[in-house]
Amino acid sequence: MYKIKIFSIGKTKEAWLIDAISEYEKRLKTIMPIDWIFAKNNEQLSTLLEKESHFIALVPSAKEVTSEQFASQVHLWLERFGSRLNFVIGGAEGIPQDIESKAFQTLSLSKLTFTHQIARLILVEQLYRASEIQKGSEYHK
Amino acid sequence: MYKIKIFSIGKTKEAWLIDAISEYEKRLKTIMPIDWIFAKNNEQLSTLLEKESHFIALVPSAKEVTSEQFASQVHLWLERFGSRLNFVIGGAEGIPQDIESKAFQTLSLSKLTFTHQIARLILVEQLYRASEIQKGSEYHK
Repeated sequence: MYKIKIFSIGKTKEAWLIDAISEYEKRLKTIMPIDWIFAKNNEQLSTLLEKESHFIALVPSAKEVTSEQFASQVHLWLERFGSRLNFVIGGAEGIPQDIESKAFQTLSLSKLTFTHQIARLILVEQLYRASEIQKGSEYHK
Repeated sequence: MYKIKIFSIGKTKEAWLIDAISEYEKRLKTIMPIDWIFAKNNEQLSTLLEKESHFIALVPSAKEVTSEQFASQVHLWLERFGSRLNFVIGGAEGIPQDIESKAFQTLSLSKLTFTHQIARLILVEQLYRASEIQKGSEYHK
């Protein structure tokens, strides 16, 4: 089984977002369970990330991929990192430069700026989509 | 006051999505009220769009913009079309070619593929963001 950690700043307070994310977490539970790690601020985020062997930082200005490219990258990375994968979503001000510079890889969800709450939903939906693409299901079509 | 119509296929059934979209609609009510038009299928969508002077089709493969570019385009279009603007989000199979070819403009939210439900949320959040960017508020920073 894979293990995904998503590091983020501030808890998810909006009820609608908790429901939406739960829906995708439920679907991913047996394939790619997600562990959310909420830091209080950038300093704590930085400390938490020091313990990790690698992480992928979501940065709007970084390289964009299609869902199919994301799916194959995620599975290549999972292989490379012993079935574990760590993502970082910044807070309202984005990811600080010192954290971004330590990222194994940066990735952009879109040229558009999203709230970090919506970014969480998009990431978890894309991870679910990635596992469905890998399985060859009809979900992503 | 501006008037935005969003044409889409199939109603929004997920409770979490209804709540999320309502939140942004509430914020937009006095600036840019949104009228959702749900077609049963592509044929009905096509008939509904025949009555419109223009529409912008959301197509993943189209040109992407930043939130700032989206904000200024939206306000230029609102001026051009007498304070009205129509968007089309396709169903699970995307927008059919005959509808896309009649679009005044195509636009991509991301290289990633989203469910059409998530695309609705993103569009309405970007419209809210566009109105905040226009106002010069701190929301989008």
